Amino acid sequence: MPVAFRDQVAEYVVNLQDSIVTRFEQLDPSAPKFNRDSWTRTEGGKGISCAFAVPNPTRPEETNTILEKAGVNVSIVHGSLPPAAVKQMRVDHATLPSDPDTQGVLPFFAAGISLIIHPRNPHAPTVHANYRYFEVSDPKEPSKTVAWWFGGGCDLTPSYLYEEDAVHFHETLKIACDKHAPGVLYPPFKKWCDEYFYIPHRKEARGVGGIFFDDLNSANHHRLPTDKDPSSRPRSQEEIFGFVKSCGDTFLASYLPILEKRANTPFTEQQRRWQLLRRGRYVEFNLVYDRGTKFGLNTPGARVESILMSLPETARWEYQSEMGTDVESEEGKLLEVVRNPKEWV
Amino acid sequence: MPVAFRDQVAEYVVNLQDSIVTRFEQLDPSAPKFNRDSWTRTEGGKGISCAFAVPNPTRPEETNTILEKAGVNVSIVHGSLPPAAVKQMRVDHATLPSDPDTQGVLPFFAAGISLIIHPRNPHAPTVHANYRYFEVSDPKEPSKTVAWWFGGGCDLTPSYLYEEDAVHFHETLKIACDKHAPGVLYPPFKKWCDEYFYIPHRKEARGVGGIFFDDLNSANHHRLPTDKDPSSRPRSQEEIFGFVKSCGDTFLASYLPILEKRANTPFTEQQRRWQLLRRGRYVEFNLVYDRGTKFGLNTPGARVESILMSLPETARWEYQSEMGTDVESEEGKLLEVVRNPKEWV
Repeated sequence: MPVAFRDQVAEYVVNLQDSIVTRFEQLDPSAPKFNRDSWTRTEGGKGISCAFAVPNPTRPEETNTILEKAGVNVSIVHGSLPPAAVKQMRVDHATLPSDPDTQGVLPFFAAGISLIIHPRNPHAPTVHANYRYFEVSDPKEPSKTVAWWFGGGCDLTPSYLYEEDAVHFHETLKIACDKHAPGVLYPPFKKWCDEYFYIPHRKEARGVGGIFFDDLNSANHHRLPTDKDPSSRPRSQEEIFGFVKSCGDTFLASYLPILEKRANTPFTEQQRRWQLLRRGRYVEFNLVYDRGTKFGLNTPGARVESILMSLPETARWEYQSEMGTDVESEEGKLLEVVRNPKEWV
Repeated sequence: MPVAFRDQVAEYVVNLQDSIVTRFEQLDPSAPKFNRDSWTRTEGGKGISCAFAVPNPTRPEETNTILEKAGVNVSIVHGSLPPAAVKQMRVDHATLPSDPDTQGVLPFFAAGISLIIHPRNPHAPTVHANYRYFEVSDPKEPSKTVAWWFGGGCDLTPSYLYEEDAVHFHETLKIACDKHAPGVLYPPFKKWCDEYFYIPHRKEARGVGGIFFDDLNSANHHRLPTDKDPSSRPRSQEEIFGFVKSCGDTFLASYLPILEKRANTPFTEQQRRWQLLRRGRYVEFNLVYDRGTKFGLNTPGARVESILMSLPETARWEYQSEMGTDVESEEGKLLEVVRNPKEWV
């Protein structure tokens, strides 16, 4: 019997999680291992949270690790979507049955991987990635899928700008996109990323971007622009999964070379201070704007510790900080690029 | 010519700000002075932001001040309320003219003081207070006030629980309330404070509470409970202002003795770590739930630096921190009281 599609996705995210966590552990063999924490959800499903932190952060001898705080989470859950969620989702997914047919409740399945890596060195950037699959079934015929989509993305947040790092990161993601529709997928998903990871009250992007997409399926042509694609046609579920796998599989290649290059750069207390100020911005974005975080915090019974794993170990706020006000300074150069997102490839 | 009511309120908050800032400066004469920063609002009005921070927080010799970060802000602004704001306010203020009369725009005036004090010592609690007056005029007859109200409150957020401090703080506030309607104002405003400064996703209060009130005027009897008040009657604008002044005037008496008692308590690195974890909770409340912060961040042209002055200098997040899990520990005792708010007087 062939493996059900949803189980293929679940298997993929679990394996990707393991390979990523293992690779980070190999990178810094003297550091503590990730804490691997399996959990089950009362309403249906399970997950694995892999968290990195040093046991006692107040001991200086423990804080010479490459990573400062990291989380690599997988969740594979199922259950019933409440009417409010169905109504919201119908905006993008016309194939979802309307309320009278379903008494407002729809069976769903969701599998995803979400990760965030905050290195200790101010010259090494923070990275975030998230790939997820969502499926809704017919309430009368649970084996029949009435809607499905993929979402995800990957973005880089440096405290200090190394242009070649931003170029490497974007190039790697563009290559993954180009495998599936040369020249077509990267530009809109890069733009979507710049728009999504934006802090309106600061008029700043969170970082130097990457790619972002949502509601990706065979029907959502407006999400998968094919006008410039010579082989323009609806993509199958397997093909779209193939694209998402390319993105997930390229994560280590997009980020690890940057981390290895920057993790041992000498730095000053002032540079650490700037890093913590930038982490304050990260907190502002995640708590005020990030849809995933807001949705999670508003979900009764949600696992708050996993949702807030994205927050940095330490963040800082100063009133009218003078850091970055000199446009010629290294801090000022970072501000310039988050205020005016640019094309890296 | 008598001084207009709005100008009396404006004068009061400016004087209160000066007396509070001056007193904190006297308390720690070797510390830098507050940075007094006057600003004007293009759309109408002005303000004074008084901020405390050490110039270079990475130098250990500069970080022996009693305060770590503080802001005492006054704003006195006027202009036109957009239709969306008028619609929202009409819920609580039936005397506001309806849209057809005003083309949806109403002249307003607002004056307020807002302060937050984050001391450095983990045994000294953070305090927040805010008192504000709002007035709406007839668009055809600007000298005619069609609605007005006061709002405000004061609350205490310790990292370590000293019961006598919480008792002193609440007792002082209760005395200020009792001056104006003995036994009547403190209980509902204490309850309102517990309800407002609550972090649903943590199932924790932000701290040990205080008082909170809003939309207080002569008409809003449900906001000024008079059922137990022997002299039950609508209070005049002057009387309600008198109550608000009592609250504002008692701020230093409610907080300074606590700060003086705790500011030099010896502390460990672990206690500092716990303080920063609790500051993480403070950030979560302010960015995710606080109505003032959300309103401010969503207001085009708002002064972000003043709005986010409430954030601590440093905050910390750990995944499943073990700190506080032992209910017998000092950290556990604080958690117990924020999970189960109690009556202090």
